Amino acid sequence: MIRLSFDIELKYEIAEQPADFVFNIHAAHTPLQTVVTEVLAVSPFQEYRLQTDESLGNRYLRLRARPGPLSVRYGATVDINHHRQSAALLEEVAIADIPPQVLPFIYPSRYCEADRLRRFASREFGHLRPGYWRVQAIHDWVRQRTVFAPGTTNSSSSAMDTLVEQVGVCRDFAHLMIALCRAVNIPARCVSGIDYGAAVQLGPPDFHAYVEAFLGDRWYLFDPTGITAPMGLVRLGTGRDAADVSLATIFGAVKSQPPLISVSALDDAANGFHLPQHSVHALSTTMPLSPEAA
Amino acid sequence: MIRLSFDIELKYEIAEQPADFVFNIHAAHTPLQTVVTEVLAVSPFQEYRLQTDESLGNRYLRLRARPGPLSVRYGATVDINHHRQSAALLEEVAIADIPPQVLPFIYPSRYCEADRLRRFASREFGHLRPGYWRVQAIHDWVRQRTVFAPGTTNSSSSAMDTLVEQVGVCRDFAHLMIALCRAVNIPARCVSGIDYGAAVQLGPPDFHAYVEAFLGDRWYLFDPTGITAPMGLVRLGTGRDAADVSLATIFGAVKSQPPLISVSALDDAANGFHLPQHSVHALSTTMPLSPEAA
Amino acid sequence: MIRLSFDIELKYEIAEQPADFVFNIHAAHTPLQTVVTEVLAVSPFQEYRLQTDESLGNRYLRLRARPGPLSVRYGATVDINHHRQSAALLEEVAIADIPPQVLPFIYPSRYCEADRLRRFASREFGHLRPGYWRVQAIHDWVRQRTVFAPGTTNSSSSAMDTLVEQVGVCRDFAHLMIALCRAVNIPARCVSGIDYGAAVQLGPPDFHAYVEAFLGDRWYLFDPTGITAPMGLVRLGTGRDAADVSLATIFGAVKSQPPLISVSALDDAANGFHLPQHSVHALSTTMPLSPEAA
Amino acid sequence: MIRLSFDIELKYEIAEQPADFVFNIHAAHTPLQTVVTEVLAVSPFQEYRLQTDESLGNRYLRLRARPGPLSVRYGATVDINHHRQSAALLEEVAIADIPPQVLPFIYPSRYCEADRLRRFASREFGHLRPGYWRVQAIHDWVRQRTVFAPGTTNSSSSAMDTLVEQVGVCRDFAHLMIALCRAVNIPARCVSGIDYGAAVQLGPPDFHAYVEAFLGDRWYLFDPTGITAPMGLVRLGTGRDAADVSLATIFGAVKSQPPLISVSALDDAANGFHLPQHSVHALSTTMPLSPEAA
Repeated sequence: MIRLSFDIELKYEIAEQPADFVFNIHAAHTPLQTVVTEVLAVSPFQEYRLQTDESLGNRYLRLRARPGPLSVRYGATVDINHHRQSAALLEEVAIADIPPQVLPFIYPSRYCEADRLRRFASREFGHLRPGYWRVQAIHDWVRQRTVFAPGTTNSSSSAMDTLVEQVGVCRDFAHLMIALCRAVNIPARCVSGIDYGAAVQLGPPDFHAYVEAFLGDRWYLFDPTGITAPMGLVRLGTGRDAADVSLATIFGAVKSQPPLISVSALDDAANGFHLPQHSVHALSTTMPLSPEAA
Repeated sequence: MIRLSFDIELKYEIAEQPADFVFNIHAAHTPLQTVVTEVLAVSPFQEYRLQTDESLGNRYLRLRARPGPLSVRYGATVDINHHRQSAALLEEVAIADIPPQVLPFIYPSRYCEADRLRRFASREFGHLRPGYWRVQAIHDWVRQRTVFAPGTTNSSSSAMDTLVEQVGVCRDFAHLMIALCRAVNIPARCVSGIDYGAAVQLGPPDFHAYVEAFLGDRWYLFDPTGITAPMGLVRLGTGRDAADVSLATIFGAVKSQPPLISVSALDDAANGFHLPQHSVHALSTTMPLSPEAA
Repeated sequence: MIRLSFDIELKYEIAEQPADFVFNIHAAHTPLQTVVTEVLAVSPFQEYRLQTDESLGNRYLRLRARPGPLSVRYGATVDINHHRQSAALLEEVAIADIPPQVLPFIYPSRYCEADRLRRFASREFGHLRPGYWRVQAIHDWVRQRTVFAPGTTNSSSSAMDTLVEQVGVCRDFAHLMIALCRAVNIPARCVSGIDYGAAVQLGPPDFHAYVEAFLGDRWYLFDPTGITAPMGLVRLGTGRDAADVSLATIFGAVKSQPPLISVSALDDAANGFHLPQHSVHALSTTMPLSPEAA
Repeated sequence: MIRLSFDIELKYEIAEQPADFVFNIHAAHTPLQTVVTEVLAVSPFQEYRLQTDESLGNRYLRLRARPGPLSVRYGATVDINHHRQSAALLEEVAIADIPPQVLPFIYPSRYCEADRLRRFASREFGHLRPGYWRVQAIHDWVRQRTVFAPGTTNSSSSAMDTLVEQVGVCRDFAHLMIALCRAVNIPARCVSGIDYGAAVQLGPPDFHAYVEAFLGDRWYLFDPTGITAPMGLVRLGTGRDAADVSLATIFGAVKSQPPLISVSALDDAANGFHLPQHSVHALSTTMPLSPEAA
């Protein structure tokens, strides 16, 4: 079991008119990710509403903020009980058997133009044996060919841009891997989260974006940036790509400060809590899905 | 009440390997669109599976076809009971009150780069009084500035392309209108369907794509192509854009023939069935949603 | 007559391997822009080569720099003798009469996708009376619809991006105006230069990019950013778009510092030198061209 | 020596207003490509003007056509005296030594976004030994990864599109090869022409687009489509990309018919004329350039 604690502080300055916010910074509720404790502080106090998307587990904090400063602070401790599977046993799912709720994740999306990458992906990865190792090969390919460089891309950069320009940040890595997976008919989706254990030379902790691919009967974790061990990832939002899992969607004239994030892991083997580490197994934090359910 | 009958015939030739199909050609099941009768014929017979996305009402026909010819024929008679509302009474929904299941439809999607059009849309439409008439103004703007011309665009053309090149087919019109709505924070989505009553000079009946915008407490119909009266539209699939509502998603080496489609309307006033016509009212075929439900 | 003096200082740090530079920072030699004095200092000294493109007047400084710091300092005093013409008399040139050396400037180029903007430009400007005022209308349209905001675009942003996103810096304004002119068959090109008289709140002096359109028998000046009076512009490079008139094309691993630029104008009416000011006339700093010459 | 004869017939229908044409269908005049005979017929007769771009050798036929049908027929016999060089001896030119008139051909252009492909090209080709064989490696890479398929691309498709989608026609192959060459600092340009010897299964003869790369002291021929032996290529237009070498630039409402083209080669060894064939040598039809000339 992994126990991670994190704290997020977001600061804004709202201009003359009230502004609406949709935050997706709460730890997701999933069967394998349990929120042990959490605390939310909105200052100055504003009425807010919490909503949960039951199908994905995303939790939305919605509020309308008055002009002036706004601080949103959220902290949580979560227990993650990883499902481990031998990678060699993980098959891709035949198209006919892709569960209906997984189907949307083979379609192209805003930042993942899988439709345009079909020939490319087929040439690079079509000849590989289907299964976990093919997804891993896509992961490796993206990682080897893409330079991690903040400031080189922007919020409209897409998988196609990253394929061509070979540079980006975590969301660009994720988008390219997702698009390439979908282009060879492997369902893939984007997760926003918090990562534990990134090297300090990468700068202060920040939000992260990573990938899940559907193999066997559930979603498995991949992080093409290689920034940290996937075991150290906390799930906040799950969606098709960054358009779905924005940490804060803001409507109105608002100035933002960089987020302040801290994260720690519990090392208490006596009670069954271990530090995140690289695993030889495929890891999942989702439950099995059946091809019949709708 | 409107009663429409339609018949779709799709023909394929599958090459050496079996191919997988996901069709979305069944009339959607919604509270206001009732399927009176329907018939499906797959020839030669192949095992298939029917699945319904309960949240959107989309119905998927999935099958794996053996090499050789494949014909899929679907016919249905549907009753559509339009909800009519005085356009003047229809308000846009404050962001804080957008129901959670509607939120995804303000985000950008594959073919609707609302994120890049915010300044543009704000300059063109930001000063208009919010409400039905603003959506209608976007509809009119798209219609007036876009030339309907088959063959000018392709399956990767997006709203941004259409904005710049001012030419396209029904899905391009829909994508541009959707992107502009979202760019001013009006939820909008794409519907694939069958249309009754298009002018014969536009060629043989074909699948159609149109728009729904969320106003008041439900989704209202718009067709920026102006090809037909919205009352003559049958809903097949509903999604963020054409990536979600493809009529046939095909995996494998397959040759397609153009679809054969026929559609008719019942004119039987004695029994309450009227031909589709242009209406002074805003029209919806969906049920009201509350801002609280999740 | 306008007499402008300017000074440019460029500083680089060349990494382990020698790097090649092609600078285009010398004041152009044209019949109406005379270089009175100039001075060039390359430090530490590196062998260099000066070349002039006779057709456009561009002057290239080429050198290979050894690893370590490099400073290039260029200063010049130029006299500009503006050709003034009554705007009302300036006609567009019939396509059949466009001089051959002007023809390349109606074709699309890297950052000016005139081919994709033909319908758009035709709808916006096609109905206007051809001539100087139509070009001025395009100038005004770009200026009114585009927000000047450093940091919003990058070196791959094109006219199409600026049309859609309505934000950019001087080169983006220039590219959009050029693309729209070409899209209605008016030859237009990009000039890099130094501008005198920009408001101090726009920050320290920087390189500038502006537009020339071909009208009557020569090229006339336009600056869609409105940053300064066109009379205060010094020509450095002339080309199809920014791809042709880069101030420094660098081959190798090099770190750049922001340029240091100063510019002043001589106010000496007794000797015929006036400060740049807005003019009611159309202004050109080029010589007449005939439709027959090749 | 190669002697090729070709005949081009272009047919148009001009609508209500006169239309302007700029044709670039004349065989280029270059020192190594001699026009032995040529004939031009414009029917019905319209006044025209012939202009030559001395620097590139492009010859333009310009005319304004009255409403109604227009037929332009051009035929020529040209002798091509190929300069042959041992590929192993051909070096790339150091940037410092690229002749000034060649410099524009390392910059990005409308359809060749070399600026965006620098990392990609550097990763694929940066480690190869500079010289003819590196250009040949780019040629082979493009050819192996791109599927020749008419109808898959359009007039706005660029090198980046072709890199991602891996499909196109001759101009797309040429654009991708050009962009990749420039991205590793090898000057490259686009030639439009007529090709002798394409396989009959590729359909009736059509215009062709191919590539020249600057190596040693001149431009060498490459055809990444592999459609024919480069020895069988006749040069019509030379430029940065297809934007510069359009066979017919048309201004006005005009309907075009597909071109009719025929081409033949003289096989008369007794007089020194040989059929085009694949050569082990690098081939050029241009004269040497010096790094000093401007």
